[in-house]
Amino acid sequence: MSESRTVTAAALAIGDELLSGRTRDRNIGHLAELLTAAGIDLEEVRIVPDDQERIVEALNALRARYDYVFTSGGIGPTHDDITADAVAAAFGVACSHDADALALLDAHYAERGMEFTEARRRMARMPVGSRHIDNPVSKAPGFVIGNVHVMAGVPSVFQAMLDNVLPTLNTGVKMHSEKVSCPYGEGDIGDPLSAIAEAHPTVNIGSYPRFSGDRFSTEIVIRGRDQAAIAAARRDVEAMLSSTGSRLAPKAV
Amino acid sequence: MSESRTVTAAALAIGDELLSGRTRDRNIGHLAELLTAAGIDLEEVRIVPDDQERIVEALNALRARYDYVFTSGGIGPTHDDITADAVAAAFGVACSHDADALALLDAHYAERGMEFTEARRRMARMPVGSRHIDNPVSKAPGFVIGNVHVMAGVPSVFQAMLDNVLPTLNTGVKMHSEKVSCPYGEGDIGDPLSAIAEAHPTVNIGSYPRFSGDRFSTEIVIRGRDQAAIAAARRDVEAMLSSTGSRLAPKAV
Repeated sequence: MSESRTVTAAALAIGDELLSGRTRDRNIGHLAELLTAAGIDLEEVRIVPDDQERIVEALNALRARYDYVFTSGGIGPTHDDITADAVAAAFGVACSHDADALALLDAHYAERGMEFTEARRRMARMPVGSRHIDNPVSKAPGFVIGNVHVMAGVPSVFQAMLDNVLPTLNTGVKMHSEKVSCPYGEGDIGDPLSAIAEAHPTVNIGSYPRFSGDRFSTEIVIRGRDQAAIAAARRDVEAMLSSTGSRLAPKAV
Repeated sequence: MSESRTVTAAALAIGDELLSGRTRDRNIGHLAELLTAAGIDLEEVRIVPDDQERIVEALNALRARYDYVFTSGGIGPTHDDITADAVAAAFGVACSHDADALALLDAHYAERGMEFTEARRRMARMPVGSRHIDNPVSKAPGFVIGNVHVMAGVPSVFQAMLDNVLPTLNTGVKMHSEKVSCPYGEGDIGDPLSAIAEAHPTVNIGSYPRFSGDRFSTEIVIRGRDQAAIAAARRDVEAMLSSTGSRLAPKAV
């Protein structure tokens, strides 16, 4: 995959709390930013409840379609943490206590004088054949099986696991992006911007409105894998903004 | 649907910027919270890029499965705003300039002395047969077709549109929830909490870790439609927390 121009990914966030509004997801945006910086295109995100059938269905759809899938949530010690079982079911393999993970956790809790409860032992369960993802924050590992990376939902743990995962991934040609701030609303620049987008088919030109008080401004983002093409599109955008300024400004006497 | 016990919904957030990490979504959590409060169960979320084929595919999957679908993003005036076309394609109807929306926007821009550009006219395009969703913030309406509610991505506009949509929806029996703060980590309470969850099958007991510094605490959330069942489960959780406290506390001399 390191030879191909694009490497694709999907995210699957798992948890009733994300769908009830109790918890606002903080992992998807972080993952998106780091994957983009690494040259991996996040192409789809799904959020599903703690329900095995729904997790299996989403995971199988995503892992068949994208180079990588990253999951968050549901790998803790309680009864509602069913991600390991669901991932095993999706791959059609058993989910069992991993000997290395048990040893790791046993030592961790012994060191801290904490009981290694049956609940904590649950965190050593993973699909047979998985590799660990180290967890420097709270020890219980995530895991990788096939192209699926299973990580914690607690943001500090998710981030630490992702930092360990990123260097192991194949990456594509990096996507570059440049921003141009535009003081006019999208309605004022939409027509000429559309013409610029058509004239520069190798870049992707995004236009993002900001609304404050009673007026819109716009951030224009030019994205692409070829920096010269981005620069050429940027010149056209900047020229367009100057002429929009002249058009909209009250005529000088 | 107002007779049934549950009304279900899905959210579809549309936009390259959500997947590149440029923008952190701020609509999904808000929608989740308001739907839950209204007695509608948000059961799935997807985020897809500004790509017609991907929008159509996700929308058709979601609208077949859930009572309602709520989309955000891609209904502005620029070339990358393709949601109206994609929704029309998903329903197999034409997308055209809506006469009422044109009149509304024409008056709006005339009043403000702004040019009614072709780009701004794009915001009046919607699938034939749609009803408007009023936009008190910036005028350009969202729209409803079938069970799909199409709203803006700018959070202030999304929120205003949602406020107009909510009173029009059928709602189910409201889901209630109670929180119990637990000073212990999930590993300390996972085993007894699992037994409580099994003993109270009509409620859903969620357990959410918080990590700060070097220790975990837990928030336990009991959700259900029957308040007496929630109260019964809560009593068992509180009794369990007392006995966990006695078990973990150093013995008094």
